[in-house]
Amino acid sequence: MPEVLFSVDQSKRFREQARLGHNRWHPDIPPVATVRPGSEFRLECREWFDGDIRNDDSAEDVRGVDLSIVHQLSGPIAVEGAEPGDLLVVDILDVGPVPQEEGPVAGQGWGYTGIFAKVNGGGFLTDHFPDAYKAVWDFHGQEATSRHLPGVRFTGITHPGLIGTAPSHDLLGTWNSREAELIATDPDAVPPLALPPNPENALLGALEGEQAEAAAREAARTAPPRENGGNQDIKNLTRGARIFLPVFVEGGKLSAGDLHFSQGDGEITFCGAIEMGGFLDLGVDLIKGGMETYGVTTNPVFFPGRVEPRYSEFLTFVGFSVDEEGRQHHLDSQLAYRRACLNAIAYLTKFGYAPEQAYLILGAAPIEGRFSGVVDIPNSCATVYLPTAIFDFDIHPSADGPQRADRGSCPKA
Amino acid sequence: MPEVLFSVDQSKRFREQARLGHNRWHPDIPPVATVRPGSEFRLECREWFDGDIRNDDSAEDVRGVDLSIVHQLSGPIAVEGAEPGDLLVVDILDVGPVPQEEGPVAGQGWGYTGIFAKVNGGGFLTDHFPDAYKAVWDFHGQEATSRHLPGVRFTGITHPGLIGTAPSHDLLGTWNSREAELIATDPDAVPPLALPPNPENALLGALEGEQAEAAAREAARTAPPRENGGNQDIKNLTRGARIFLPVFVEGGKLSAGDLHFSQGDGEITFCGAIEMGGFLDLGVDLIKGGMETYGVTTNPVFFPGRVEPRYSEFLTFVGFSVDEEGRQHHLDSQLAYRRACLNAIAYLTKFGYAPEQAYLILGAAPIEGRFSGVVDIPNSCATVYLPTAIFDFDIHPSADGPQRADRGSCPKA
Amino acid sequence: MPEVLFSVDQSKRFREQARLGHNRWHPDIPPVATVRPGSEFRLECREWFDGDIRNDDSAEDVRGVDLSIVHQLSGPIAVEGAEPGDLLVVDILDVGPVPQEEGPVAGQGWGYTGIFAKVNGGGFLTDHFPDAYKAVWDFHGQEATSRHLPGVRFTGITHPGLIGTAPSHDLLGTWNSREAELIATDPDAVPPLALPPNPENALLGALEGEQAEAAAREAARTAPPRENGGNQDIKNLTRGARIFLPVFVEGGKLSAGDLHFSQGDGEITFCGAIEMGGFLDLGVDLIKGGMETYGVTTNPVFFPGRVEPRYSEFLTFVGFSVDEEGRQHHLDSQLAYRRACLNAIAYLTKFGYAPEQAYLILGAAPIEGRFSGVVDIPNSCATVYLPTAIFDFDIHPSADGPQRADRGSCPKA
Amino acid sequence: MPEVLFSVDQSKRFREQARLGHNRWHPDIPPVATVRPGSEFRLECREWFDGDIRNDDSAEDVRGVDLSIVHQLSGPIAVEGAEPGDLLVVDILDVGPVPQEEGPVAGQGWGYTGIFAKVNGGGFLTDHFPDAYKAVWDFHGQEATSRHLPGVRFTGITHPGLIGTAPSHDLLGTWNSREAELIATDPDAVPPLALPPNPENALLGALEGEQAEAAAREAARTAPPRENGGNQDIKNLTRGARIFLPVFVEGGKLSAGDLHFSQGDGEITFCGAIEMGGFLDLGVDLIKGGMETYGVTTNPVFFPGRVEPRYSEFLTFVGFSVDEEGRQHHLDSQLAYRRACLNAIAYLTKFGYAPEQAYLILGAAPIEGRFSGVVDIPNSCATVYLPTAIFDFDIHPSADGPQRADRGSCPKA
Repeated sequence: MPEVLFSVDQSKRFREQARLGHNRWHPDIPPVATVRPGSEFRLECREWFDGDIRNDDSAEDVRGVDLSIVHQLSGPIAVEGAEPGDLLVVDILDVGPVPQEEGPVAGQGWGYTGIFAKVNGGGFLTDHFPDAYKAVWDFHGQEATSRHLPGVRFTGITHPGLIGTAPSHDLLGTWNSREAELIATDPDAVPPLALPPNPENALLGALEGEQAEAAAREAARTAPPRENGGNQDIKNLTRGARIFLPVFVEGGKLSAGDLHFSQGDGEITFCGAIEMGGFLDLGVDLIKGGMETYGVTTNPVFFPGRVEPRYSEFLTFVGFSVDEEGRQHHLDSQLAYRRACLNAIAYLTKFGYAPEQAYLILGAAPIEGRFSGVVDIPNSCATVYLPTAIFDFDIHPSADGPQRADRGSCPKA
Repeated sequence: MPEVLFSVDQSKRFREQARLGHNRWHPDIPPVATVRPGSEFRLECREWFDGDIRNDDSAEDVRGVDLSIVHQLSGPIAVEGAEPGDLLVVDILDVGPVPQEEGPVAGQGWGYTGIFAKVNGGGFLTDHFPDAYKAVWDFHGQEATSRHLPGVRFTGITHPGLIGTAPSHDLLGTWNSREAELIATDPDAVPPLALPPNPENALLGALEGEQAEAAAREAARTAPPRENGGNQDIKNLTRGARIFLPVFVEGGKLSAGDLHFSQGDGEITFCGAIEMGGFLDLGVDLIKGGMETYGVTTNPVFFPGRVEPRYSEFLTFVGFSVDEEGRQHHLDSQLAYRRACLNAIAYLTKFGYAPEQAYLILGAAPIEGRFSGVVDIPNSCATVYLPTAIFDFDIHPSADGPQRADRGSCPKA
Repeated sequence: MPEVLFSVDQSKRFREQARLGHNRWHPDIPPVATVRPGSEFRLECREWFDGDIRNDDSAEDVRGVDLSIVHQLSGPIAVEGAEPGDLLVVDILDVGPVPQEEGPVAGQGWGYTGIFAKVNGGGFLTDHFPDAYKAVWDFHGQEATSRHLPGVRFTGITHPGLIGTAPSHDLLGTWNSREAELIATDPDAVPPLALPPNPENALLGALEGEQAEAAAREAARTAPPRENGGNQDIKNLTRGARIFLPVFVEGGKLSAGDLHFSQGDGEITFCGAIEMGGFLDLGVDLIKGGMETYGVTTNPVFFPGRVEPRYSEFLTFVGFSVDEEGRQHHLDSQLAYRRACLNAIAYLTKFGYAPEQAYLILGAAPIEGRFSGVVDIPNSCATVYLPTAIFDFDIHPSADGPQRADRGSCPKA
Repeated sequence: MPEVLFSVDQSKRFREQARLGHNRWHPDIPPVATVRPGSEFRLECREWFDGDIRNDDSAEDVRGVDLSIVHQLSGPIAVEGAEPGDLLVVDILDVGPVPQEEGPVAGQGWGYTGIFAKVNGGGFLTDHFPDAYKAVWDFHGQEATSRHLPGVRFTGITHPGLIGTAPSHDLLGTWNSREAELIATDPDAVPPLALPPNPENALLGALEGEQAEAAAREAARTAPPRENGGNQDIKNLTRGARIFLPVFVEGGKLSAGDLHFSQGDGEITFCGAIEMGGFLDLGVDLIKGGMETYGVTTNPVFFPGRVEPRYSEFLTFVGFSVDEEGRQHHLDSQLAYRRACLNAIAYLTKFGYAPEQAYLILGAAPIEGRFSGVVDIPNSCATVYLPTAIFDFDIHPSADGPQRADRGSCPKA
């Protein structure tokens, strides 16, 4: 077990920890530790809603979540010699749930998937699912089951939803201006188009006093992925993955969090993976000047790990860019993927699942979502690959018809 | 070898064949043959541009292509007992290039990938690549190489780009009206937003006289995927795949064409796969009433085949929904995928490829394109997985820098 | 389609072809063609029993087979510049069944698997299955089914069972003396311990007269794998594989045959794969002096292809080196594998298959056989991996017990 | 984290633990705990040599190991309701190294692979490697590297080498008599043909006094796999695997140990995997009467896990049953596998590894060993699949020759 550089007491809230992490991106947050290239270390991580979601049969907690507190990030870790223009090589050595009993928080043998209410964040299919729902998952080694989703058991594709370097002041300015411009196009949208800086509940590590207040006013929210990596929610950044992150500030300042026991491509329910607290073991190295050398300037590149769950049979659903009202859109893959997901949900309901149960399964199980066609005017074609082996009944279409059964229910609020 | 139900003489153009196929969708096109459920048969297929693209070192042919002639479809095949509401079960038993020397057409040991000029169809990255380009590929069993793209060799994921049932008159009307509505929003767009019915060069099988003329005026173009399947360009519909197609007319009327020796997810260069003529062996069966029983009403579902090329290491590029000018868009996966592809191209140029060569590689090789995050406002996150083993040099990022070399060139026009 | 260098008329016996192949190994057999390194070409191949096995419901033909006629080898092909000590690089570009109707021979849409009678060759489990059995398989693209083995459908792992270079005179002498020595230990064994040279039915290509007679007396039988490759029956030498064969004579003299539509590891029924005639497309190249440079002197090395059937769930059976009578043997993996196969057969009979049906399935389906432990005195541990998806019923062990049904029967003689 | 039913203090020897485990098989060893079907629990495990092997650069410790002390088994765990004739369903939920620093024992961030001296146990290639060697591996999450084997890094296939139920008195008697009979054929063999009961260093859990002494005289050694599972050393019994173990005594009495961070098929160096202490999380269930119902009477059956390391390119070495002196053996797969391994070793030495380094790599890396042909008289054909991606240099054969370099050395004694 590598040295713990960021320690979390899972019985306490993130802002009550001995050493403070952060929930905003800002270049001035001081590193909690400095390591040499070649080092390996552990970060302990708090689950993204800081313990607000409980292992129970009510979705009240999901309905009332406060997005201003996310994400709880462990770090930053500075790397000696890292300078703007370098690539920070990060090996995701291991990632797992909370190893010991320290309190009743997600990650201690269980996790959750939620659907946000439309008035409180929404999600990919929020017009179809405007209410809040929750499913609690039990961990069995690397597999998960849920009492709210009977008939399903799968191997998780465990990963950090969020990992990134600190932005420079310039880059932070770019983020803030471009996102403000978008928000300005429809400032009252529900859910909002983007989340502007918000000093409320901002945590900025060891920053204090006026400096902290100033930073809180401009620090970027952690919801989206950006040039620094960030909340990419790429399920394949699993154990054994190697990611090359652009460096924008001295030391790189690496932070991570938002651990997922599993997730489907897209994390479609927004609170969509199986969320958990836990640990993250990392190794770091440097490619000096690598951003220019390799043309890796606007996004990370990475190698997925070698231990992804192995499924070989998938029932695949297709969608294209005509919307639910029959209106034709022009090469809109986001829409095509939504239609493919809706098709998958419609299919699963034929076996007895409620639509929201099917939605939760697609958010959490290791489904694959693919851009199949993006040029065949006017329709993009998107596909969702659902591994058939995650169900303990047969989901193949056949002349016999679907094996309909009582599949229970999940809490709603 | 199963019985040939649609035969093609590869030395003749599609409209000169003994038995005519079609290049538009229309419910009235008479079947060329009727088979029982449980049957297996072969369709011979003409490459999508009907032999206009040559095995040479000029891209003049690609620049001048006439989109009104595509796609050359073999069929329709009627299935006894198929009625609207059924699911037509289609096994893709085998698919391959032209087995014998009958003339100098793509499919006879070679195929091509093209980039269309912006003024003539364009493609996914047409603003970056407004000119026409071509790469010719040589087949070595199931592997391909190209003199225009040295250093690359991969196993193709061979599939029909286009397979579908006939639309009903109602469905055809829906298509025409929704697409007309889109076109009307910008009728002069270059490239066009969608392709309206066009009697010029329309082929409608055995339809004749006035009936043919009337049909030609309303028959749907074959470019996009739609409810009947159609030009889905899903690379995973490869050998051994089973697809469940909605039936909209008596007999189902199955047609197919646009064979691809290989293709990357998205078929991003539009003329993007490795195009070829060849053969397609199919098996058919029925699930009576399956559309309603399984909720498969707006799109096919399918199982991919078991013989996809096996690669296990991928260098992955990320993109999100900020455009090339730095403008923030709201959860636009189409844009995110474009940025991811541009990132991959930028990377490959560091090894000596011209950008258009890299673009052609991404269009033809079995890359995977994934919806990684679709909810993290405001940024969608898309990823392109490039198998490292398709290159005969090392493309890993490292402190040593890229192995730059002369990688030749591809023809431009 | 590459040039055909060895053509076969599938309506005629191997010894009646216009150009003669061979069924023995001998250095003096003249090449049928000479190619340059870098060439690609096609060999047409006759099935290993030269058409003696019929597509019917009797096993009389299997019972009476004459092992002196096997294997029908297409070649030899000489490679310019190949000298003893080189490695011949052979790409298996494609392999498939007979493409056209030329006569009722295996490979024309069907193939067969046989169990030899103990008195006529036997097989891996001959003491348990002393009689002859047969199963006929129908091809559906790359998948196979058998009316004699209902409930099973799988993707074949198509490959040449036999491919090799010619031995030198010295090497041939070594083979003959070491095998004679083994035979001498029990000359009357049934089945025999090895097959000595046998002029009866020997075919030696273009050799004639006295030279042919002399060669026939010493030419090696083709049953076993040896230093030159030969009848390795390695199922993974499938499409896309690259094999490096030692060169022992000028030109290398490459020959191949014994095509298999599919086979399980071990080819346990001896006539065990799905046997067929067909075609084999090869590419050749040279590594000069490669035997010494790479230490590849006593056996080929190879890379398997990238299109092996993709199964991800396997029910695995274990065996160790205690024999059926309970006698303990010392680290005998051959015995351990036999016990593992017998365990798999016992299991499948619980679902309604006759033991010989189960045996035939294990011989033909893409099962994997592994050396799991070879050092834990006194027991070797061997495992057989059976892909569960090849059955159209559920073969998982469960508290509900096996889904027993009438599984038909296969012919016996 | 499930409840710990067998706890180990890694700073103490196995016989000094608060609760004693066992290192022999005997029906009378009392269970340490009893659980219900459906339970999940953790066993902590001591590495198989009880801490005798150190993280240093000497192989003295390996040379002097005392085989009478192995294996340290955690358990037995009784399952309520389990009776002879049942199948015990065991899910391998998780397995990993020692999670915390408790002392300098294998499993705490490192493990070892050893080659036993011929006079002290030997191994698969003991005639070629009569001396003792050792390699120490460092763990990086799920990957391993070794300072004694530079240039190699791979993802481990972590598993318990040993898991099994207790034998009945009858079965124990059968073991002892059949193994004694084998030993009697050559009682002075070096290494011995099998290991007879040996009271010296026997540990029998909570058995005491005369009962313990009597049991120690007849209790079976743990080296081999047997009807109860035992030391199967099947690398694929990794996370997520489900094994069905025959039950021979009331409660089943499940025990496990001999954890491996990784292992190649065969565990060819005997002390061959990467050995470690650690933890094992299991789930248990019952199939009443399952042995007869499913015909699973002489061996376990199992499903491998879904998280095996994913490699897709393998350089494969072949061997057949002619021994190193050129003598022909009859269908001897054990010998064929030895020759294949020797061929792999010869190949790797061309790149600069010492033969013993290559041997250690083959023992520890996730190589696959297959029975390719077992019927082609007189030669069995065995194959070793070596994943090319575990090396940080190119091991493909090519006209350029091998990339020879100084590859360091491993300690010898």
